[in-house]
Amino acid sequence: MNIDTVSEPVASLPVRRGRRRRSDRPGAMPTSAPQVRSIPAYDLLGERALAAIESQADWILEKVGVEFRGDAVARDLLREAGAMVDGDRVRFEVGHARALCATAPRQFALHARDPRRTVTLGGDHIVLMPGYGSPFVTDLDRGRRYASLEDFRNFVRLSYMAPALHHSGGTVCEPVDIPVNKRHLDMVYAHLRLSSKPFMGSVTTPSRAADSIEMARIVFGRDFVEANAVLQGNINVNSPLVFDETMSGSLRVYAEANQCVCISPAIFGGAMGPVTPAAVAAQTLAEATAGIALVQAIRPGCPVVFGSFHSTMDLRTGALTFGTPEAGLVTMALSQLGRRLGVPVRSGGGQITSANAPDGQAMRDSANALWSTMISGAHQVWHAAGWLEGGLTMSYEKFIMDVDNCGAMLRLLEGMAVDDDAFAREAYDEAAPGDNFLATAHTLRHCTTANYSPILPSPGPYETWRERGGKSAEQHANSIWKSMLASYEPPELDAQIDETLKQFMAERKSAMPDEWY
Amino acid sequence: MNIDTVSEPVASLPVRRGRRRRSDRPGAMPTSAPQVRSIPAYDLLGERALAAIESQADWILEKVGVEFRGDAVARDLLREAGAMVDGDRVRFEVGHARALCATAPRQFALHARDPRRTVTLGGDHIVLMPGYGSPFVTDLDRGRRYASLEDFRNFVRLSYMAPALHHSGGTVCEPVDIPVNKRHLDMVYAHLRLSSKPFMGSVTTPSRAADSIEMARIVFGRDFVEANAVLQGNINVNSPLVFDETMSGSLRVYAEANQCVCISPAIFGGAMGPVTPAAVAAQTLAEATAGIALVQAIRPGCPVVFGSFHSTMDLRTGALTFGTPEAGLVTMALSQLGRRLGVPVRSGGGQITSANAPDGQAMRDSANALWSTMISGAHQVWHAAGWLEGGLTMSYEKFIMDVDNCGAMLRLLEGMAVDDDAFAREAYDEAAPGDNFLATAHTLRHCTTANYSPILPSPGPYETWRERGGKSAEQHANSIWKSMLASYEPPELDAQIDETLKQFMAERKSAMPDEWY
Repeated sequence: MNIDTVSEPVASLPVRRGRRRRSDRPGAMPTSAPQVRSIPAYDLLGERALAAIESQADWILEKVGVEFRGDAVARDLLREAGAMVDGDRVRFEVGHARALCATAPRQFALHARDPRRTVTLGGDHIVLMPGYGSPFVTDLDRGRRYASLEDFRNFVRLSYMAPALHHSGGTVCEPVDIPVNKRHLDMVYAHLRLSSKPFMGSVTTPSRAADSIEMARIVFGRDFVEANAVLQGNINVNSPLVFDETMSGSLRVYAEANQCVCISPAIFGGAMGPVTPAAVAAQTLAEATAGIALVQAIRPGCPVVFGSFHSTMDLRTGALTFGTPEAGLVTMALSQLGRRLGVPVRSGGGQITSANAPDGQAMRDSANALWSTMISGAHQVWHAAGWLEGGLTMSYEKFIMDVDNCGAMLRLLEGMAVDDDAFAREAYDEAAPGDNFLATAHTLRHCTTANYSPILPSPGPYETWRERGGKSAEQHANSIWKSMLASYEPPELDAQIDETLKQFMAERKSAMPDEWY
Repeated sequence: MNIDTVSEPVASLPVRRGRRRRSDRPGAMPTSAPQVRSIPAYDLLGERALAAIESQADWILEKVGVEFRGDAVARDLLREAGAMVDGDRVRFEVGHARALCATAPRQFALHARDPRRTVTLGGDHIVLMPGYGSPFVTDLDRGRRYASLEDFRNFVRLSYMAPALHHSGGTVCEPVDIPVNKRHLDMVYAHLRLSSKPFMGSVTTPSRAADSIEMARIVFGRDFVEANAVLQGNINVNSPLVFDETMSGSLRVYAEANQCVCISPAIFGGAMGPVTPAAVAAQTLAEATAGIALVQAIRPGCPVVFGSFHSTMDLRTGALTFGTPEAGLVTMALSQLGRRLGVPVRSGGGQITSANAPDGQAMRDSANALWSTMISGAHQVWHAAGWLEGGLTMSYEKFIMDVDNCGAMLRLLEGMAVDDDAFAREAYDEAAPGDNFLATAHTLRHCTTANYSPILPSPGPYETWRERGGKSAEQHANSIWKSMLASYEPPELDAQIDETLKQFMAERKSAMPDEWY
């Protein structure tokens, strides 16, 4: 018998599986989980439904349009590309915005300063990264508080060490102890110095975007950056259907530098768009298409990501809700729509929740959101670790629980081998009906690699667990992140490059007074 | 525009959605969530892999065989059907066992004594039910303890009230305060008296199976039971590849009475079969096929369910693990294999975990296991609510958290409407770019029905949550189950039937001395 293998591990970097547990190699966690999906993407919608949603997006772009407020340059670029401009409003003939997206690459490399950590966006690849944008952090020891630069650095360190995260993220949390107009320098420096995974730069003003790219040039070299994507900028749409000038201005900076632009509409159904999932999907597609069209008008071929940030609301209270079934449906639909558009998709999912503590509700929401993301064929997953309170807080404990689940889901995406070795016919010679397979040669040969090795310890028998204090997952996670940070070692960085980065930061900081809002 | 609707609610009973929250209708929770899947089942494996697994199952049945220990009647029946019998061992020529399954129905009704609660097994239908078999129960007030008949009754009451459970279950927990040889009578009576949803009878001896069916005959009428499935019996395989005489004896009782037999191989990879997922799937298929073949040899056309109970182990400690990626892969493969066999599938998933408390780890495991179950097209889901500690304990609090997630996943299975109403073009006349959609007519028209209404309260803002005591999901669940039980009202039951049931139980109980083991 020599049949097809449905799927096999295809990671080029060491896979965290089997015996290589934290406890076996303190301070030396394996560094990368698989980055390739070997199981099929789930297709929620059929051709007619997908075409109908695309047609609705076309209708929005033609009849309603998108506003690029305060950015005449952006509007002129789109007018030159054939769009209809009237004041701030930009409209596109049916199919035109989509056609403008055609120069965007289907798949591209996002380079890391350690080439072994370079990731691919698009195709069968998947890139997981931590949460983004929280002003608060929390842990079991110190409780909830405003995030500091040290917290930011800690999450960069933890993301660097977490095998299931392929990417260092961007504003993992807001270092509110640093002036608003200078913190981007410290954040980019932390990503470059404390990690060697890919990362995101600043977008909060065009000049901060330019600083981010300049720092990347110091590390990667100007020519390399001109030809390759080495960082990402996230352009949030001020949904419904508005790009404000900060965002379109930063978009232009990234696009001119040939760096990856992720366009992220932000729609909570019923507030920034209609409440119905199909409408949220269509409006997301319309907004993202308009943004991608602008990127391509600036620099054809510039790498882009079709992003989204969407969820549901409790329409009685206005509270945002996450991990809900309606949001999961939109996530799955958007992955399909993005594949049809022909660009990599950043999922609106991740491990997101409105819970205020990493309890059962938080992890249920998170696991549900992550499944819809992972099964649907999304290419990049933001907020995959740490997110609490609808994104207001990064939790050290939830970060650990989340990266553990990321590892499990990446194992799921590897699929199962269906071949002679997997069928283990010889084991039935050793174990007859009623016998135990534990001592068969097949089990012994596979026992260290067969199953994903979780980061959180096995709960174990109830009595033992009680005797040892009845620790919750959160309490175990607390020990784990502290032990990880205690054993953290930064990746190497050329001393001259490090010095140049520090000089650049010092010059930029001294060139402007502190701003705190 | 008049395009296809991808999916619409198709439940015949009221759907728990929108404004009909617990708090609005105390004591009158809506009674049933949708029972039909409107989104496609996910196909993990392709044709070649499925055929290879079927071929491996054929190889097991031909070359290794299945033992029916101590049951000459069962072996004779299979010999007459064409199987090769040698001692306890029964072997089947390639394809023969599968051919014997062909008389089993693809889809059938499992009748409830309230016809509105009758469920369909097979096709696009899904049936969720609570945990099965726990000797312990736990709640936040009283802690962990041996289960009693009152606990059993409480879970029957709660399952009756939970809209997302379609089925009352079987041995929801073990009423260990009742003699082993009599408790089946109390359990069946509780299902019949305190609920009107479908249920499972006893299988612990053939005579207890017969008692269960006799009690069903009292309620449904002898002729009705002869022609229709009104209860299910679960036949566990003593994996690997052994049916013991208690199980095959009880199987024969159910099959002779034309009642639904679920064949459940029980394989923890590496112990009761090889460690590899493809091997677990193949052996499960082989064992289930043999059992179903026996049912059909006894009574062609008798309704069956292709069951499974499988998971992974920590192979260093022997601890059972649940909700793992490898188990999820097997769950998804078995749903496909069962559909090809042409009988309804009981998923090995559900909301299962080895955690000892309903914490983040428990709910992550549970949500992961439920996703693989629900997305794969399984037809019946055991252990969908309450399960802790690898099934040793039913948790009152986790039961609530789980049924909430069941409701969310049933909403997901409804899919999204893709039609003019969903696209809400008219809403864009009311809300221009940058405006809010909350006050549009479309949002107002849909706001009570658009989103699943969870049972657990929205966490709300952190500050408010802290002021109110910072309750965990588990603490909220504690209040909810108590309030549900306080407002429970039993369904009506004809007084004469009730009296006859009680007389039957009294006679059976007085006919035998108590046995405690």
